[in-house]
Amino acid sequence: MQTIIDLPGWAVEENQKLPQAIESVQDRMKHVIEFSRLNIQHETGGPFAAGLFERATGRPIIIGVNRVIPLNNSSAHAEIVTLMMAQKILKAFDLGGQGMPDYQLVINAQPCAMCYGSIPWSGVRSVVIGASGEQVESLTGFDEGPVHPQWQLEYEKRGIEVIENVLAEQACEVLKTFAASGAEIYNGRQRS
Amino acid sequence: MQTIIDLPGWAVEENQKLPQAIESVQDRMKHVIEFSRLNIQHETGGPFAAGLFERATGRPIIIGVNRVIPLNNSSAHAEIVTLMMAQKILKAFDLGGQGMPDYQLVINAQPCAMCYGSIPWSGVRSVVIGASGEQVESLTGFDEGPVHPQWQLEYEKRGIEVIENVLAEQACEVLKTFAASGAEIYNGRQRS
Repeated sequence: MQTIIDLPGWAVEENQKLPQAIESVQDRMKHVIEFSRLNIQHETGGPFAAGLFERATGRPIIIGVNRVIPLNNSSAHAEIVTLMMAQKILKAFDLGGQGMPDYQLVINAQPCAMCYGSIPWSGVRSVVIGASGEQVESLTGFDEGPVHPQWQLEYEKRGIEVIENVLAEQACEVLKTFAASGAEIYNGRQRS
Repeated sequence: MQTIIDLPGWAVEENQKLPQAIESVQDRMKHVIEFSRLNIQHETGGPFAAGLFERATGRPIIIGVNRVIPLNNSSAHAEIVTLMMAQKILKAFDLGGQGMPDYQLVINAQPCAMCYGSIPWSGVRSVVIGASGEQVESLTGFDEGPVHPQWQLEYEKRGIEVIENVLAEQACEVLKTFAASGAEIYNGRQRS
């Protein structure tokens, strides 16, 4: 009894082409947004991507994408996919463990309630966000779910840095393209 | 590039032994608590289990368990494991989709912030909880994370039934056994 979380072939190839270090958070975000765009272009999932980087050096561990519909898996949001794969690559369920460098998760959009809750368990020290939750909801119709009303403060309390509004306009362009395509929006209980 | 979420051998066998229908929520919980107990006995993960059932008939789809440490995967909480496997079995990323029966997720303890956020996306219509979040935190030292302060209300708004305090005492017994064993407690940022 098992289930597999995978990346589409194009994403495996694009990961192999990434530079060894991506210095600025803007450049890291640029790559992540490009993955979100490619994910809808290839019809391999929703318009979301997340990349895990060593914070100081910018070494990319992996950039993953949303896989909900192709994998029939409502938890296969980009952040969960990326964290699961990064932890497998790094052989650690706690990326904040002793002796590890600080890790940063760069996401093209504000995490939903589930992904928000997954980040503290991952050991990630820094989160970089493109489009805001409001932009996601107004541009696409996706629901962010019951995110904690003081979500940034709750991260701060746990020592997790939050950097918002990084290349938000470019991130929103992909969301708009997705919305204009008429592709399926899957939300909790939409069909009831 | 892929990662696998699986159940330990004993859990596969125990799933095969389940009755075809388990009528009361108490009996459903009894099985789930037994899985949480077996998971620590076999040292195959943390003291948490979750079962997906057809709400009306009590037909079990699958009971899954926490797999964080064995799989090096901080998102492999019991609820996420169970929902991923159930959606694979039922070939549906939305368990609340048209033409489907209502599904109920029975959990030995209140979901953490991540699992709380995962439930609305799964399409589950009903959540049954054993031990409370406070009991989890005080008995084991596990952290529930930044759960929405009005979490029950947020579920109600989305049409998700919440039934709390079902066999909480029996659920707590397993948590106490786990805590007394000195097994590893893994929380966000514990090691920093």
